[in-house]
Amino acid sequence: MSLNKTFALPRGTADILPEESFLWEEIESKARRICQSYGFREIRTPLYEDVNLFKRSLGQTSDVVNKQLLELASHKDDEGYALRPEGTASIVRSYLENSFDKKEALSKFFYMGPMFRGERPQRGRLRQFHQIGAEAIGPGSLSAFLDAEIISLAMFLLESFGVKKAKLKINSLGSKEDKERISLWLREVFAADKALLCPDCQNRFERNVFRVLDCKNETCKGLVSRIVTKLPLSDEGTRYFECVQEALRMAGIDFEIAPHLVRGLDYYSHTVFEITAQGLGSQDAIGAGGRYSQLIHELGGNLKVDFGAIGFALGIERVLLAVQSSLNDPGFIDAYVVILNKGEAFLKEAFKVSDYLRKAGFKVDLSYLERPVKSQFSQASKLNARFALIIGEDELASGKISVKNMKTSEQELVDRGAVLDYLKKIASLRSQ
Amino acid sequence: MSLNKTFALPRGTADILPEESFLWEEIESKARRICQSYGFREIRTPLYEDVNLFKRSLGQTSDVVNKQLLELASHKDDEGYALRPEGTASIVRSYLENSFDKKEALSKFFYMGPMFRGERPQRGRLRQFHQIGAEAIGPGSLSAFLDAEIISLAMFLLESFGVKKAKLKINSLGSKEDKERISLWLREVFAADKALLCPDCQNRFERNVFRVLDCKNETCKGLVSRIVTKLPLSDEGTRYFECVQEALRMAGIDFEIAPHLVRGLDYYSHTVFEITAQGLGSQDAIGAGGRYSQLIHELGGNLKVDFGAIGFALGIERVLLAVQSSLNDPGFIDAYVVILNKGEAFLKEAFKVSDYLRKAGFKVDLSYLERPVKSQFSQASKLNARFALIIGEDELASGKISVKNMKTSEQELVDRGAVLDYLKKIASLRSQ
Repeated sequence: MSLNKTFALPRGTADILPEESFLWEEIESKARRICQSYGFREIRTPLYEDVNLFKRSLGQTSDVVNKQLLELASHKDDEGYALRPEGTASIVRSYLENSFDKKEALSKFFYMGPMFRGERPQRGRLRQFHQIGAEAIGPGSLSAFLDAEIISLAMFLLESFGVKKAKLKINSLGSKEDKERISLWLREVFAADKALLCPDCQNRFERNVFRVLDCKNETCKGLVSRIVTKLPLSDEGTRYFECVQEALRMAGIDFEIAPHLVRGLDYYSHTVFEITAQGLGSQDAIGAGGRYSQLIHELGGNLKVDFGAIGFALGIERVLLAVQSSLNDPGFIDAYVVILNKGEAFLKEAFKVSDYLRKAGFKVDLSYLERPVKSQFSQASKLNARFALIIGEDELASGKISVKNMKTSEQELVDRGAVLDYLKKIASLRSQ
Repeated sequence: MSLNKTFALPRGTADILPEESFLWEEIESKARRICQSYGFREIRTPLYEDVNLFKRSLGQTSDVVNKQLLELASHKDDEGYALRPEGTASIVRSYLENSFDKKEALSKFFYMGPMFRGERPQRGRLRQFHQIGAEAIGPGSLSAFLDAEIISLAMFLLESFGVKKAKLKINSLGSKEDKERISLWLREVFAADKALLCPDCQNRFERNVFRVLDCKNETCKGLVSRIVTKLPLSDEGTRYFECVQEALRMAGIDFEIAPHLVRGLDYYSHTVFEITAQGLGSQDAIGAGGRYSQLIHELGGNLKVDFGAIGFALGIERVLLAVQSSLNDPGFIDAYVVILNKGEAFLKEAFKVSDYLRKAGFKVDLSYLERPVKSQFSQASKLNARFALIIGEDELASGKISVKNMKTSEQELVDRGAVLDYLKKIASLRSQ
């Protein structure tokens, strides 16, 4: 290494600098409050897991597993870990490992944090990206109302973040039995045109014919929209889907039925959904989810018939792209301490006052550099300080502090011991 | 892989389950508020960086770099990333990459999040552990008052988290010139006894003789305490350290001067400190920090004389161990919806009411499983619900809801449309 080498961010990652971190804090604290309102509780799983957990949950043939897992180099006796590419597998692992199924009929979790995929970086797609998600898992999870509750939560989160015009698309794949029947039906209706499908879909035809429905290839899309207008659900599957729709209407949520929406992964059944928003370019999905009973079994869970789960994830970077223009830094500080004279006695007084006010909860800043008074005031303005607390010779001699309202420029001389009460009084007036 | 294989947590990691995640939320939101009071703003850097960044900052010979870095397996064209073992190097990298030195004289950052070290797991030491830290960096950072401010922040954070009896130890290594002089002095005073030092210290003697001072070997400790009672600082270095001490006293902070405290890393100068707490066993450090001007230069920063930085990190797991007994889950929900009769009409009414109240900010839960009324009430108690909202035939027919106060068992029949106002009124009475 050359001396004074400078270092750069890893490809496809980003620093979240102070001028935008407040947006993240705002989104996360809203998300916490709202998820808790809906009866979900936070869970935090490690950022890496046994690589086989992801292979098992996402499928050996998925793009994420084949091309995008970021694995850890083996370390001593440990091998085979990967950074999590999404949140669901880890939460199901934790659910089973901690025997939540024996503690309660339904466990409702939410999570937020970084996910990792080694994909080609592009707008709105990073190698370290962030999601907020929720999962409801348990032997008592099979209810159309729960599907609607989860969707209501996802839509209300986006609305609260300030995402305008989020559009909900839903579909139903029916029960496990429905899926098997529909899979045969799809192979039948596509049989005559099989040769026209793209090479990927030729493969999918046998392995997972559902994925033909959301192929991006133009020829496939044309065929699909001509041949499939509605998936032939059983009466029970239809009734379940209708109940979801009715509950969504009761919650005041607009939606569109998208008969070709299947979601990539094998383990979905019944309700699947996707949420898009404006301003995201070609990658317009801001969130997605669905019911995934089969995954619990895949990961070693109990095989009770009704055992199931439903969840969703929202992309935080996508949310920020969608709301970008509607958010402003509300940053301010309560007071900036301005020191008029040079010398340690003034610095000490300033340190003491700021330490005291900070511990009382006020946001206070100052410079110890003995800079010109003018530049201290301009720093106070830059930080959007409500008050300047001015310390000079007169103030020091008399044990007082000049408190200047930065907006009105009014200035008052306040006893040093009374500054806290003075600021508190003004803060309480302001909040009324 | 066998079918139904279950998966386990990676070694040395932990799930943070809902029953403890509220503690993390509480600590983090307090930390945010307090760091902001002190004028620090949040920064979030990626969880992995160029492995050479850590090698350069921590030193090729440090244990962390040699034995504990968790590296990523190389992925396509990218190579040489490691999960961050601590927060400072990444923040200095971001500071330089984003040219903060050209924007402001002093940049004050705080951060919180996971760090990773591949060490042997033991009580209070995990492979994925979590820190809250702060860094003040900039050409205008060299002030003894800033050292005291940083220490005041660290101590006030711990106090606010409920850590009792945190003990602060401080020391000063003097300026860069002092350090060079003291280094020669140490080699001189230890020369006669060099052969008695442990093999590690024999090595350290030439490379970084300061590290002999905090060797854990009993013979070395004996020698050190006999030979070194105080580091011979220059007048300027002594004056700086005295000013730090005076400011700490002004902030009401008790401390002990620990002449053998040097911190492991080469780049520290002037003030170094360590905070210990009770209840942590043999690893009793809960936080530590110091001034580290030299690191900025190492990572390619400007070589101005006064350019410097100071920071600290607190271990969140350690904080939780120290406060364990003093925290209780204050969890509650506002209302649990109890459904008296079976049938979709009742489920719909329950769904509608809960969706409405949740969107108004109330914490509401319910079960869609049509369980016995008794078990619904016991779930309401388990979730510490303030109210039960009861929906039965009478209520459905009359468009009302029975609201039962779970504490007093008082019950009132309230118009469906008035439940929100009813709960709001009670909530505002409660908060007065």
